Amino acid sequence: MKTVNIGLIGWGTVGSGVIKILQENGPMIEKRLGTKVILKRIADIDLETERAVTGDRDLLTTRAEEVIGDPDVGIVLELIGGIEPAKSYILEAFRRRKHVVTANKALLAVHLDELCGVAQQCNVDLNFEAAVGGGIPIIRALKEGFVAERIETIFGILNGTSNYILSTMSNEGGEFGAVLREAQAKGYAEMDPRLDIDGIDAAHKLAILITLAFGAKVPFEDIFIEGISEITPLDIQFGREFGYKIKLLAIAKADGETIEARVHPTMLPADHLLSTVDGVFNAIFLTGNAVGETLFSGQGAGMMPTGSAVVSDLIELGRNILKGTRERVPILSFQHSHVREMEVKDIEDIVRRYYMRFSALDRPGVLSKISGVLGKNEISIASVIQKGRGVSEAVPVVMMTHEARERNVRRALREIDEMDVILDKTMLIRVEDELS
Amino acid sequence: MKTVNIGLIGWGTVGSGVIKILQENGPMIEKRLGTKVILKRIADIDLETERAVTGDRDLLTTRAEEVIGDPDVGIVLELIGGIEPAKSYILEAFRRRKHVVTANKALLAVHLDELCGVAQQCNVDLNFEAAVGGGIPIIRALKEGFVAERIETIFGILNGTSNYILSTMSNEGGEFGAVLREAQAKGYAEMDPRLDIDGIDAAHKLAILITLAFGAKVPFEDIFIEGISEITPLDIQFGREFGYKIKLLAIAKADGETIEARVHPTMLPADHLLSTVDGVFNAIFLTGNAVGETLFSGQGAGMMPTGSAVVSDLIELGRNILKGTRERVPILSFQHSHVREMEVKDIEDIVRRYYMRFSALDRPGVLSKISGVLGKNEISIASVIQKGRGVSEAVPVVMMTHEARERNVRRALREIDEMDVILDKTMLIRVEDELS
Repeated sequence: MKTVNIGLIGWGTVGSGVIKILQENGPMIEKRLGTKVILKRIADIDLETERAVTGDRDLLTTRAEEVIGDPDVGIVLELIGGIEPAKSYILEAFRRRKHVVTANKALLAVHLDELCGVAQQCNVDLNFEAAVGGGIPIIRALKEGFVAERIETIFGILNGTSNYILSTMSNEGGEFGAVLREAQAKGYAEMDPRLDIDGIDAAHKLAILITLAFGAKVPFEDIFIEGISEITPLDIQFGREFGYKIKLLAIAKADGETIEARVHPTMLPADHLLSTVDGVFNAIFLTGNAVGETLFSGQGAGMMPTGSAVVSDLIELGRNILKGTRERVPILSFQHSHVREMEVKDIEDIVRRYYMRFSALDRPGVLSKISGVLGKNEISIASVIQKGRGVSEAVPVVMMTHEARERNVRRALREIDEMDVILDKTMLIRVEDELS
Repeated sequence: MKTVNIGLIGWGTVGSGVIKILQENGPMIEKRLGTKVILKRIADIDLETERAVTGDRDLLTTRAEEVIGDPDVGIVLELIGGIEPAKSYILEAFRRRKHVVTANKALLAVHLDELCGVAQQCNVDLNFEAAVGGGIPIIRALKEGFVAERIETIFGILNGTSNYILSTMSNEGGEFGAVLREAQAKGYAEMDPRLDIDGIDAAHKLAILITLAFGAKVPFEDIFIEGISEITPLDIQFGREFGYKIKLLAIAKADGETIEARVHPTMLPADHLLSTVDGVFNAIFLTGNAVGETLFSGQGAGMMPTGSAVVSDLIELGRNILKGTRERVPILSFQHSHVREMEVKDIEDIVRRYYMRFSALDRPGVLSKISGVLGKNEISIASVIQKGRGVSEAVPVVMMTHEARERNVRRALREIDEMDVILDKTMLIRVEDELS
């Protein structure tokens, strides 16, 4: 019987998950696939460190080339992450007519289009379900389930670390720094957490979703990115009083000839489904012109959920190999020739409501000065909360605006933050009231 | 260029959705598929009634045989529903080597295994994404996204009509009958609503999910089914006081050599994601051994969401036709030879907590009599609420039990309901505290 033969580059967390799933769920997988998946070779530069999961030691090598060059290997799993040497390994696998599965969002966020082009020249496939949303089959949903949809909007909680920190701050209290350290101790945040808390990881995933959902390439550097490290318990508490929760959202909208593409802390209605997705869970809330609103939620990271997505990808490719077919579904969801470069809409042109927290001296006339500058910039105030009293110390003055243009908001805040009565940079959080 | 040619049997709501999506999203679909989908023929016994969507009148026929027999048609869409003649049409299409897409859950709930067998003999495929969860791509998730999973539990809100009624009763108040009539007026409930409110439609969908998730065939008549028509505003209010919401849940669990399979009103924790899925929305909350907990939510019915699922199916088959392949993914998610007949676990053997609302005379000693019978049957009480006072009229006495076996609960209630001080049949609602 023909088997599905794979080679693994990268024996880290996700690679270990793949090995474990193939071991534990192997019989189940065989009942579905109709044959066995055989792991032929495992490459990693470090073969000494103890792993949670061990494979057959005879399969191990320190040289990725031995995986890529193995004539028995039909599918190469690239699970080392980062741009290089991952990219070179993938390209070399393509040249050797091997299909590739990767979970490498940083690479795909910038090089997906190029990789797709080479894969097509070589008549091979590239799958990357694990790159976005871990165990959530959102890539497959965009390429197959929603193939008949004109996708309109995507709102994603795409980074589990940030969501864990924000929901812990919201549900249990605590300052950002303390909750981050706790998350690091629990293994929910990296020792260097910047990719996660600064929003970059979420933006990587958003860039991939934009291509698949809209058939659009946008320059990664044009995606607006703001992280969560400035969010305070005060903002969470005031948000709650206004009826909102704060989530790090990755947002994309097809807006005529441009694409809205941004990642930032967002106030969204507390009763919205996305607001109830807490902890390390990810979720994608997507609106299509036929299907309407849909939500997918699940664990966005971790050895087993991400490993499961990688195995689902290799089984899809395995099914192609068993049937002697390839390039059945376009790598980018759209035929490559139809994927267009599109411009990202300038965030300063976006009109929405805003939450503003001013650190003001508690003196007569301060509110009048602030609202004067806002009014001059065509920003009208929907409601104000002022709490606490003090003479020399700053008190928070919190406002929810009506719809305003971000350009005007920025101009107003530049002027307000220069005032003598304003003691600290004003906290600005974008509000999304309508999520479809 | 080779096109994907389809024939439609059934120009009703879903059929109209398919026509509309092919018209409106045709260019988008072509950019993904790489070619056009051509609707070659439309059959319906009624060609006179005005439709919201009209196709080309030249395509119309009253004879389904003309669709099935058309040599140009490669994929037949069966969208008439019901057992016959739908089943005969599908079998005839198979014999003529046509692939079939259907949304017919009533048919599949009972005949899926037989249809799969014939399809395999004829080397054709059968797709049915639209049969469960409307626009939610849950069938595809089970067959592909979660192909590496050992699925453990499924909790589904699978009937939009029931969910609309229960969430309206919960959010806006109102008796079951009044809310049902309002739902009928709005088109969210059929004039004959029994399939929906009695839980049968949800059970049809559950039967299909069980086969795909567990590789198990269970006799449809062994699925325990209880509808929502007995639920009162009182139960919703007491449930809220205990921290629960009431949803009609379809539940399946792999439990060793048996399968739990049941549809009934369920109290589930008010802060669970599933509890926030309101209105006509459906949701599937699924736990796999690798991926953990996942949730999919979306519109479970309607012309466009269901039409979108049908089109996604025909595109999947179209991709196979364009690549000259077939039977790539097993119809039942598992290879047919691995699908086993499995026994449904007797609901009387299930152990869980219960909500009980007794209609009791407000006399001294009533509570003691009730709790005496419960105690005798090994049912212990976690909390009691008694509200309102009256001498001759019944007052509600509400209890939340600790974990108890359903057999004991039924025995106790038979005895309690015979008491002189009990004026009406006791309301029993099953509680699910752990959803994974």
